[in-house]
Amino acid sequence: MQVDKPLILVTNDDGITSKGIKSLQSVMQEFGEVIVIAPNSAMSGMGHAITINSPLRLQKENIFEGAESYSCSGTPVDCVKLGIYEILHRKPDLIVSGINHGANTATNVLYSGTMSAAVEGAMEGIPSIGFSLCDFDADSDFSNAMKIVRQVTQQVLKNEMPKGVCLNVNIPKGNDVKGLKICRQAHAFWEDRFDKRFDQFNKPYYWLTGDFVEQDTTEDTDLYWIERKYASVVPTQFDMTAYKSIEILENWEL
Amino acid sequence: MQVDKPLILVTNDDGITSKGIKSLQSVMQEFGEVIVIAPNSAMSGMGHAITINSPLRLQKENIFEGAESYSCSGTPVDCVKLGIYEILHRKPDLIVSGINHGANTATNVLYSGTMSAAVEGAMEGIPSIGFSLCDFDADSDFSNAMKIVRQVTQQVLKNEMPKGVCLNVNIPKGNDVKGLKICRQAHAFWEDRFDKRFDQFNKPYYWLTGDFVEQDTTEDTDLYWIERKYASVVPTQFDMTAYKSIEILENWEL
Repeated sequence: MQVDKPLILVTNDDGITSKGIKSLQSVMQEFGEVIVIAPNSAMSGMGHAITINSPLRLQKENIFEGAESYSCSGTPVDCVKLGIYEILHRKPDLIVSGINHGANTATNVLYSGTMSAAVEGAMEGIPSIGFSLCDFDADSDFSNAMKIVRQVTQQVLKNEMPKGVCLNVNIPKGNDVKGLKICRQAHAFWEDRFDKRFDQFNKPYYWLTGDFVEQDTTEDTDLYWIERKYASVVPTQFDMTAYKSIEILENWEL
Repeated sequence: MQVDKPLILVTNDDGITSKGIKSLQSVMQEFGEVIVIAPNSAMSGMGHAITINSPLRLQKENIFEGAESYSCSGTPVDCVKLGIYEILHRKPDLIVSGINHGANTATNVLYSGTMSAAVEGAMEGIPSIGFSLCDFDADSDFSNAMKIVRQVTQQVLKNEMPKGVCLNVNIPKGNDVKGLKICRQAHAFWEDRFDKRFDQFNKPYYWLTGDFVEQDTTEDTDLYWIERKYASVVPTQFDMTAYKSIEILENWEL
């Protein structure tokens, strides 16, 4: 191991055998020493969940060429914690998560295990990036996304990431991506529905489903640029304080 | 049901049989029509997780005096979604989550299922509050916390909650709480460790553990006021954009 080579931790939420993490790992090999620690099954929608009520399992794998790899029974955030404290025993120089099969734009950042791994990295003071391709297909073509991954990674390694911040990078589907835009998280939401079904004992069960509703019509959001074929880069922070509301609440009789 | 009575959805992450949710429900009965939908088991640390890879179960219960109640196989955020879209079929006037057994100060807001239920409420445009007592004991004395819950709920029903914002209320242990302080999320973190053990087949497994490290020495944080025996109220938003970093990133060669 060369001293000047950055140590890069790769994770995701689609699971260690997904095509997206393989694409991400292969780009990262160009930049440094790579270690992959990712869930052993799909962990989409796990948000910032951590496993505290059951023990975690970690299994050494031999999946990636040139990179040590481990599958984990836990969530993406568990993977980051196990990576730093149990496998590496030091903080890596970079954490990358993805490439997610499907967009993590707008408020999806809160539900996304992929992005939560990057947010966890920011909490540890490590430059961290979550990458998502706006295509849910398990067999998506990641070749164009890999170019964007390369471009953003170069800049993150070259510049100093602002404190308490990670990057949420979403990449449009297709080969006609026009460029990159730095922007903000759109205020768009899921309009939830439940698909109610009945089991063999005639007891109901529910599948969460719904439509994504864009309520934000302003121009500087991730959704706005994705629709116009730009990759979006949203600097994302873990400080959830609504600073502008502090003054409003001061006028309440609390 | 009187028309002027607010409809209040109660949830938590410690599970429907916990003492904290019982205390919260009993205070809410003073304010309106109450419906309880909470996890059927402990869901601490589930963050903003949603259940998308397995179906959800919902069971009518008869646990609370004066309130309809349902236990759910999913996460606190699942409970909020099921409550709105499958049980109530309309948005409640208020969502309250807790009273959590243990603090949700500082960055714990990201890991907390209790607070994520409140954040989900804010995403739905519903006034929402997460309450936590800084005492992990399953048999905590909630009597003093209930006074703070009453006081904050009165103000939330009386005033207009800022858009996109919910409240994170933490209450110190004991009967000597001095008052309430509106403040910001402290930048304190877990210094994680894993307790590595071996099972009967000599295979390793890991329990997540660690110490909470206060790195934020400024005066206006939730941790600062909790230590001084004040209840903390942090307005909390789901917009995670690091606005101040947008300009910094504009100077990168992206």
